[in-house]
Amino acid sequence: MISAKPFNFPYDGNLAAKSTALIVIDMQQDFLSETGYFAKQGYDPSRLRSILPVISKLIATCRDVGIRIIHTRQGYRSDKADMTPYEKWRRNICGIGDANVLVRGSPGFEIVPEIDVRPDDIIIDKTCNSSFTYTDLEHVLHAQDITHLIFTGCTTDVCVHTSLREACDRNFQCLTVSDACASGDQYAHEAALHMITVENGVFGTISDSYSVINGLSKIRNCSQ
Amino acid sequence: MISAKPFNFPYDGNLAAKSTALIVIDMQQDFLSETGYFAKQGYDPSRLRSILPVISKLIATCRDVGIRIIHTRQGYRSDKADMTPYEKWRRNICGIGDANVLVRGSPGFEIVPEIDVRPDDIIIDKTCNSSFTYTDLEHVLHAQDITHLIFTGCTTDVCVHTSLREACDRNFQCLTVSDACASGDQYAHEAALHMITVENGVFGTISDSYSVINGLSKIRNCSQ
Amino acid sequence: MISAKPFNFPYDGNLAAKSTALIVIDMQQDFLSETGYFAKQGYDPSRLRSILPVISKLIATCRDVGIRIIHTRQGYRSDKADMTPYEKWRRNICGIGDANVLVRGSPGFEIVPEIDVRPDDIIIDKTCNSSFTYTDLEHVLHAQDITHLIFTGCTTDVCVHTSLREACDRNFQCLTVSDACASGDQYAHEAALHMITVENGVFGTISDSYSVINGLSKIRNCSQ
Amino acid sequence: MISAKPFNFPYDGNLAAKSTALIVIDMQQDFLSETGYFAKQGYDPSRLRSILPVISKLIATCRDVGIRIIHTRQGYRSDKADMTPYEKWRRNICGIGDANVLVRGSPGFEIVPEIDVRPDDIIIDKTCNSSFTYTDLEHVLHAQDITHLIFTGCTTDVCVHTSLREACDRNFQCLTVSDACASGDQYAHEAALHMITVENGVFGTISDSYSVINGLSKIRNCSQ
Repeated sequence: MISAKPFNFPYDGNLAAKSTALIVIDMQQDFLSETGYFAKQGYDPSRLRSILPVISKLIATCRDVGIRIIHTRQGYRSDKADMTPYEKWRRNICGIGDANVLVRGSPGFEIVPEIDVRPDDIIIDKTCNSSFTYTDLEHVLHAQDITHLIFTGCTTDVCVHTSLREACDRNFQCLTVSDACASGDQYAHEAALHMITVENGVFGTISDSYSVINGLSKIRNCSQ
Repeated sequence: MISAKPFNFPYDGNLAAKSTALIVIDMQQDFLSETGYFAKQGYDPSRLRSILPVISKLIATCRDVGIRIIHTRQGYRSDKADMTPYEKWRRNICGIGDANVLVRGSPGFEIVPEIDVRPDDIIIDKTCNSSFTYTDLEHVLHAQDITHLIFTGCTTDVCVHTSLREACDRNFQCLTVSDACASGDQYAHEAALHMITVENGVFGTISDSYSVINGLSKIRNCSQ
Repeated sequence: MISAKPFNFPYDGNLAAKSTALIVIDMQQDFLSETGYFAKQGYDPSRLRSILPVISKLIATCRDVGIRIIHTRQGYRSDKADMTPYEKWRRNICGIGDANVLVRGSPGFEIVPEIDVRPDDIIIDKTCNSSFTYTDLEHVLHAQDITHLIFTGCTTDVCVHTSLREACDRNFQCLTVSDACASGDQYAHEAALHMITVENGVFGTISDSYSVINGLSKIRNCSQ
Repeated sequence: MISAKPFNFPYDGNLAAKSTALIVIDMQQDFLSETGYFAKQGYDPSRLRSILPVISKLIATCRDVGIRIIHTRQGYRSDKADMTPYEKWRRNICGIGDANVLVRGSPGFEIVPEIDVRPDDIIIDKTCNSSFTYTDLEHVLHAQDITHLIFTGCTTDVCVHTSLREACDRNFQCLTVSDACASGDQYAHEAALHMITVENGVFGTISDSYSVINGLSKIRNCSQ
């Protein structure tokens, strides 16, 4: 059980490594690099970089207890067949019309080297903000009998929140780790975390990395 | 064209009544009534009631120019076959375990009488916060060749935002009307509106009812 | 365990009432009545009527052992908002352009009275041939922890097969009951049953009502 | 307009290159090679190989008139995270438990060299028999404003038919080219083609490559 608000996770106390996954959203060069897409939009990537040690610690703890790590990567198909005229127009006004950013196969699409991606991890490539829409994430989660999701990554208000909302709608049990998420927009970040708690946990429950690691350590001790 | 931020709607200036729908999210007794689900959770429904005249004016204008009205209603199936043990538990801690709220067929499920629902309108019943997940909304929108959506209703941060996010991921052109949305939580409401505008309009664009009605009046004049 | 081909059901021998559902596809007046949609298309509804006693026996057995019954009904929304210009055209060439058939709320939409529908049963209304597309069937199955599906109903080659294919793609364990399915087209019916078995059971496995009832009777004895 | 049965394609006569795609299903080594998955299952791949010249001619004609080519490839993720215990069991009874077949990145996953795949073509990788389920095909089709699909490839009764059924349910206009599809099971192949035509075209309409090429040649002449 992980201490969380507005309720502990999971609600019924049945925390099991094999039915749980750590979701690490979009920790890619395009968002974290000082020369990537996000920096070009005028956002300070240092906020996003500041969660790297926290996520690394969570990844290490999850591996240790046997929780699967799932990384997502945001980017259009390399053939850009999923890019609409509207999106081309918006890339132009964002000053990245011709830039090879947020595209699979480009350097910015890669997960930053500080994140320890291993062969056993699962990687989901997505075009949408949601990790579920037009991907095989739900297929993989069901195939692996994973029902509990721990959310981390960036940005809190956009891709983390959209993925979290869709996970809740699909009845996955969801926990968001407040200090393992970040956004370029601090107001949006804080409000996104707050929104999880309205109506007694409309998007699941929220905790911090200390409590998560503490809760997970009890799983390890149990299974020894 | 409707004046909006961070960009006018739609982006290419091609506003057409037949490819546009006004989405009115969850204006039901359970949220707006002083004795409904939402009031029982300690939220002040007067915030939600305050947008009734604005939505009514938008509905009247949209009807006038030939824009389709789509109402959504939130609630479990009347047989509750879509309610999980977790949801039963959360209803219990919310004090509505036995109450017949947010259930299809119950009085609280009805759209409030102040909203003018007509036989030509489309009604989408949903269990999820998203209007797309496990419903026929996308099917109906494609069947009607509707590509542009104007979002109104409640609550801004939960059902409006989840539906808006999924609409954007599916490449619908989306406009949110700031004064035609409301939440019981004013901070969450304002932050949800702000989030639409990050990254130059990551969830479309935002306007107010005055600008929307003004923009729509030009469609009417054109088609005369 | 139910004796079936090309492999017994379920493959691992773990047959449990609470994780199994009996799916009864489209046993509606529009297909079974002598004056319904199907008869108007020149198909002989007596083939479809002939499976009524078999399905009734399966329903009774399933109820007896605690297996949930799920009925589907095919039909456009009563507002016909999901009907495309192409579908209107095809209805015209089928001679049912103005007829109120395959529409929710019309008499032909009702399940025939020979089928014993009870309040505990789950009903899924659909526009598509698939029972999954644009419906809440998957949502309900997950909410009820149902992973094993026994398919019956009509027509074998169209709605039963499309639903079966989508269930397999979503990793539900599927059994089709050969003598509890029917089609107006006997060649298509037989071929549809055959297709299930190709590639060592590409769409699950196939049995007959005798073997299903026999297999289910062992569940009952076990749980006593 | 393409001459087809039970109705010409498309039904309204409006055939346009930019809104049409040629879908080429699973023309991979695992199905066509004499040492691939399909041959190992005891099916004769020469049936599948026999449609290669027909598909090649269709691809060339479609390129010529500006119709987009979409190839699908069947196979589990290279990390096999989408493979269930049931599927592992079935692979074992099929004698391919340890074999690296139907897996992305393996030699058998590649499209056969006789098929001319070009950088402008769109490739959809899928685990399911359907090309839509858990893929971005629908996202790409909408992004490209493609509404009309011409189906070819293998196998007619499994992946072609499942993809066709889902395309019809999503209201794409669908044409299947009889001599550009094949199956290892000739009875299933013929029955699958027949099923398209029941109920006046329940899964669209059917034609042969001669009629398709003839119909497409008129597009070319028009646009010159």
